[in-house]
Amino acid sequence: MPIRVTVWHEFRHEKRNPKVAEIYPKGMHEAIASHLRKANDLEVRTATQDQDEHGLSDDVIQNTDVMTWWGHMAHSDVKDLIVEKLYHRVLQGMGLVVLHSGHFSKIFQKLMGTSCNLKWRDDGEREILWVTRPGHPIVNGIDDHLVIAREEMYGEFFDIPEPECTFLISTFSGGEVFRSGCTWRRGLGKIAYFRPGHELFPTYHDLNVLKVIENAVRWAAPASTPAHPTFGKRENGWLERK
Amino acid sequence: MPIRVTVWHEFRHEKRNPKVAEIYPKGMHEAIASHLRKANDLEVRTATQDQDEHGLSDDVIQNTDVMTWWGHMAHSDVKDLIVEKLYHRVLQGMGLVVLHSGHFSKIFQKLMGTSCNLKWRDDGEREILWVTRPGHPIVNGIDDHLVIAREEMYGEFFDIPEPECTFLISTFSGGEVFRSGCTWRRGLGKIAYFRPGHELFPTYHDLNVLKVIENAVRWAAPASTPAHPTFGKRENGWLERK
Amino acid sequence: MPIRVTVWHEFRHEKRNPKVAEIYPKGMHEAIASHLRKANDLEVRTATQDQDEHGLSDDVIQNTDVMTWWGHMAHSDVKDLIVEKLYHRVLQGMGLVVLHSGHFSKIFQKLMGTSCNLKWRDDGEREILWVTRPGHPIVNGIDDHLVIAREEMYGEFFDIPEPECTFLISTFSGGEVFRSGCTWRRGLGKIAYFRPGHELFPTYHDLNVLKVIENAVRWAAPASTPAHPTFGKRENGWLERK
Amino acid sequence: MPIRVTVWHEFRHEKRNPKVAEIYPKGMHEAIASHLRKANDLEVRTATQDQDEHGLSDDVIQNTDVMTWWGHMAHSDVKDLIVEKLYHRVLQGMGLVVLHSGHFSKIFQKLMGTSCNLKWRDDGEREILWVTRPGHPIVNGIDDHLVIAREEMYGEFFDIPEPECTFLISTFSGGEVFRSGCTWRRGLGKIAYFRPGHELFPTYHDLNVLKVIENAVRWAAPASTPAHPTFGKRENGWLERK
Repeated sequence: MPIRVTVWHEFRHEKRNPKVAEIYPKGMHEAIASHLRKANDLEVRTATQDQDEHGLSDDVIQNTDVMTWWGHMAHSDVKDLIVEKLYHRVLQGMGLVVLHSGHFSKIFQKLMGTSCNLKWRDDGEREILWVTRPGHPIVNGIDDHLVIAREEMYGEFFDIPEPECTFLISTFSGGEVFRSGCTWRRGLGKIAYFRPGHELFPTYHDLNVLKVIENAVRWAAPASTPAHPTFGKRENGWLERK
Repeated sequence: MPIRVTVWHEFRHEKRNPKVAEIYPKGMHEAIASHLRKANDLEVRTATQDQDEHGLSDDVIQNTDVMTWWGHMAHSDVKDLIVEKLYHRVLQGMGLVVLHSGHFSKIFQKLMGTSCNLKWRDDGEREILWVTRPGHPIVNGIDDHLVIAREEMYGEFFDIPEPECTFLISTFSGGEVFRSGCTWRRGLGKIAYFRPGHELFPTYHDLNVLKVIENAVRWAAPASTPAHPTFGKRENGWLERK
Repeated sequence: MPIRVTVWHEFRHEKRNPKVAEIYPKGMHEAIASHLRKANDLEVRTATQDQDEHGLSDDVIQNTDVMTWWGHMAHSDVKDLIVEKLYHRVLQGMGLVVLHSGHFSKIFQKLMGTSCNLKWRDDGEREILWVTRPGHPIVNGIDDHLVIAREEMYGEFFDIPEPECTFLISTFSGGEVFRSGCTWRRGLGKIAYFRPGHELFPTYHDLNVLKVIENAVRWAAPASTPAHPTFGKRENGWLERK
Repeated sequence: MPIRVTVWHEFRHEKRNPKVAEIYPKGMHEAIASHLRKANDLEVRTATQDQDEHGLSDDVIQNTDVMTWWGHMAHSDVKDLIVEKLYHRVLQGMGLVVLHSGHFSKIFQKLMGTSCNLKWRDDGEREILWVTRPGHPIVNGIDDHLVIAREEMYGEFFDIPEPECTFLISTFSGGEVFRSGCTWRRGLGKIAYFRPGHELFPTYHDLNVLKVIENAVRWAAPASTPAHPTFGKRENGWLERK
């Protein structure tokens, strides 16, 4: 059974800024999706914000095992109803891989219970991402660190709950530091945050970056037998009667 | 400097159910507050849901170091605007001690990012709370376990994020189990959940239970020097210029 | 590539106590191993304490992806040198699934950094294991709870480091509670503890118990590309020169 | 009741290297201890490696609430018996604040269950320590980041168990990153690691560094009522008979 992946993308910068369109002629989502499609165990579709229901019909949401999320300039335009559906789907087991400026998305903030705020600067400086949990499946094939020649800076304090695992920490030429790869669980769902991906740089053409996303998708996939936790009133003796 | 505590209470069961009023003639909040008032280092006020703004004016919220929260039948009547203010105050450092059925309060759900659902049964059965992190300040003075003769049952799965610390786990006569004492941090604020406290039992007259609440209040108090993390754009070189 | 599993077993109770031999005629290790051998993705061998080097030659250790460990009456007879080798192998990525009385094994204590002590009683009482992290791969196929009709009791306080994930919590007829399913990482290796398995009960013939062990083995398997973190002195400029 | 602090120090570099002696004429321990002695709530003594029993008699160990630990060139000379005593004392509730090269001490490795290895370079470069958990008592009074003009570099991967809290992360001029402030609990004891403090730089004269150490000592202090968890066999019915 393949993992059903939905690569969700805001897809607005590419339409308004020729520089972004030049780097990502088909959109950032296609750069990511076309990489993931090479894997036999992944079944990949894309969805974008300006589609009907942001491309996220009930059918798409229910039949997605893992969603990746990139948004930036239009977080507030994402409908609360869709966010609510995504939230419940994560609690039921859908994995969520939040990319770069997706830190400020409604769905990430709702799942974290914090502001997810940070410092930033888009000067295109060198980012080094250091592996702080070697052996973790998300950094499979990434041995010690990765270098991205030009990226936006994100700096601490990053207002997130203490991660269950911090697998990458970045340093920038300017001297800042950032927890760039983190994981949490909410309900039955697994959530990963992965920092790189400013729209003005060709980050999603970087093979190491794509590899981490691919790994994260596999890590976030739900267990093969869906769990259905039950809640509510239990009469005395129910355990014996079963 | 004393810790400024606000004991927040729904205060409806006592007005509608004579049995509850008999156990808590002045309300559950007064049972808790009158215990806390005995401590020299705590400055205690109460606030209840049917007061103006639920008793939570901006002034009260800003001047509260730690809030305790009990609600049950009227969670949905708590105004979203007040919840939003409480949320931001926790991120700025206010401690929050969520009691019993407060697990379903809007503020707890918002901070957790999960449904906080569970199993339950109100047959008045024996609860034993086992200390799973001896030495933790919240169980200071509680050595191995506490017994409550009659309580409501809460059972797993309790849909919360993995606690940063689980300091108490309960077992009930019926055979269920529950993570009854848990902690998390969100922003600068510390959050504790403590399970016991069904309105039909005299749980908040139990000295061990009151001791845990008192300990939790001290544990959740913010650091003496308030921190003010800053976010947003940083020009290159700002670190050197400072 | 199959996961190479070594089922390690003390294998002494079976030889000395006819009751144990009756339940496990070929030893507990064979009960576990014969279940695991049914899975196509697992390559299973066994090793026992009274073999040369406890059945753990350098070759066996290096070629094991995940080891399960059951010991009880002879922990102190396990050679320190072998423990040291296992410890380094875990840090290099070998998964370790510690079963029942293995909580007191040298290797588990060394990896935890705590005493791993607990309360116990072997009266053969009912154990209910409640799933506290549904959706976790180790409880794949186990929906809400499992019941074992007769088992030894283990009770809190269990002196372990705060688990990274607590996926099962047990309650016993006597009223005690125990964190029965926990995970940690040490170096590149993943470690799971799973409580049931007293030698006087047919626990390792229980299909749910076997399923959890099988799941744990898969969960603990190292990433497909072995990581080799490097340490030590780095000259200034090494990052640029690479 | 004051917190009884023992500042433990290897105290060998100062005797062999005039440069170190010039920076710390009375030893690094006195730089730390003389700062801590200014606080009314701390009762401070020192102990050094070349004293009898490393200055750590049973009486000193039993009457220490929090110990700070700096060692570097002589870790292997610390007697195993003393390490064993320190280990049990931590499990019973003594706080431990491990400084800089203490990462390789026997006691830290034993409590962590990992190698605690890292990358390093002693070129005297700029270190910036970023606060990643504002509001935490250990960074009380440290708002956003601290700068140390010249320090040794420590770089990831730092082979430690996932910290329960990471309160500081460093970046260095050379581009490396390091989790410089971390906490764990073992048994009843709290453990903090704090990175800065190479012997060739006046780091322990830096007021911010001293403040973090002072905060860490207070954070690591045991609860006011000592807990005494008990283990071992419990007869059926013991809970009712109490």
